[in-house]
Amino acid sequence: MAVATMAKSKVVLQQCLSARLQIQPETDETPAKHVEIKRGLVVYVCFLKDATEDILDKMVKSVLTARLSEGRDEKLVSILDLPGDVLIIPQATLGGILKGKMMQYHKNIDKETGLKLYTKFVEMCEQNLTENSKIKGVDVCVKSGTYGNRQVFSCSTNGPYSHIIEF
Amino acid sequence: MAVATMAKSKVVLQQCLSARLQIQPETDETPAKHVEIKRGLVVYVCFLKDATEDILDKMVKSVLTARLSEGRDEKLVSILDLPGDVLIIPQATLGGILKGKMMQYHKNIDKETGLKLYTKFVEMCEQNLTENSKIKGVDVCVKSGTYGNRQVFSCSTNGPYSHIIEF
Repeated sequence: MAVATMAKSKVVLQQCLSARLQIQPETDETPAKHVEIKRGLVVYVCFLKDATEDILDKMVKSVLTARLSEGRDEKLVSILDLPGDVLIIPQATLGGILKGKMMQYHKNIDKETGLKLYTKFVEMCEQNLTENSKIKGVDVCVKSGTYGNRQVFSCSTNGPYSHIIEF
Repeated sequence: MAVATMAKSKVVLQQCLSARLQIQPETDETPAKHVEIKRGLVVYVCFLKDATEDILDKMVKSVLTARLSEGRDEKLVSILDLPGDVLIIPQATLGGILKGKMMQYHKNIDKETGLKLYTKFVEMCEQNLTENSKIKGVDVCVKSGTYGNRQVFSCSTNGPYSHIIEF
């Protein structure tokens, strides 16, 4: 009999040709602000209860080194090896569990801790990708959405190859 | 001690304002063919080993009646109550499990059975949405991708509200 261990975070990964995400909504004074990436990886991320900084190393490594991107000769390579851009989107809804017709989010982390972990996760991805870019002499970027905001988003893909990873 | 029960299928649900999916690639003689939906629900679906037709009723009901779409006054309603379009995308990669840097798909169903279940799932969603459309006197549609094809896809959303449901 296996004991079901509870996930501390969930990510959904999708490949894109381009993606655009609003990071600040329009106000009376200013237009909406957006970030954009070219070919690369969209990372939807959600932290659950009991998530701590301990899990971030493994999350960053898995997301950046998993061979999910189509390289030359249709061989799969990591986003670091492609190399490609990364767009990180906070997505607390991934923690939802369907009860009847309603989603419940009792397993989600509190917003304050979630923001801290999200911010650190983004920083670590940026650092990894930047170091890799220097070594490879290529120009790729990490962009990220604003935690807690509505994620106004558009993307285009040659095949999302959606994957779910739990940590 | 809880026994970990194995999922027989996985769906990822995302809200969209519009979405466009290639259902037949370009050939020497014919241009690529696409389907499109307006505001509605994108349903990525993957069948795993041991999945049978028994689970389809619950899947269809959950996907179509879960209150995930923003209705009037920001109240959440089901895609049937919105009402909105549905785009079903076969996505066998959702069955992947990360081992080291590679995804393994040992838990996925065989392609032949997967195609049968996918086809039946699409039919059942169409039937449900059509009946509901008649009652409500509205014009909504179910569109679906070609099983086994590369899912060339673009979409726009005011917030994907991504949810994972396992059956």
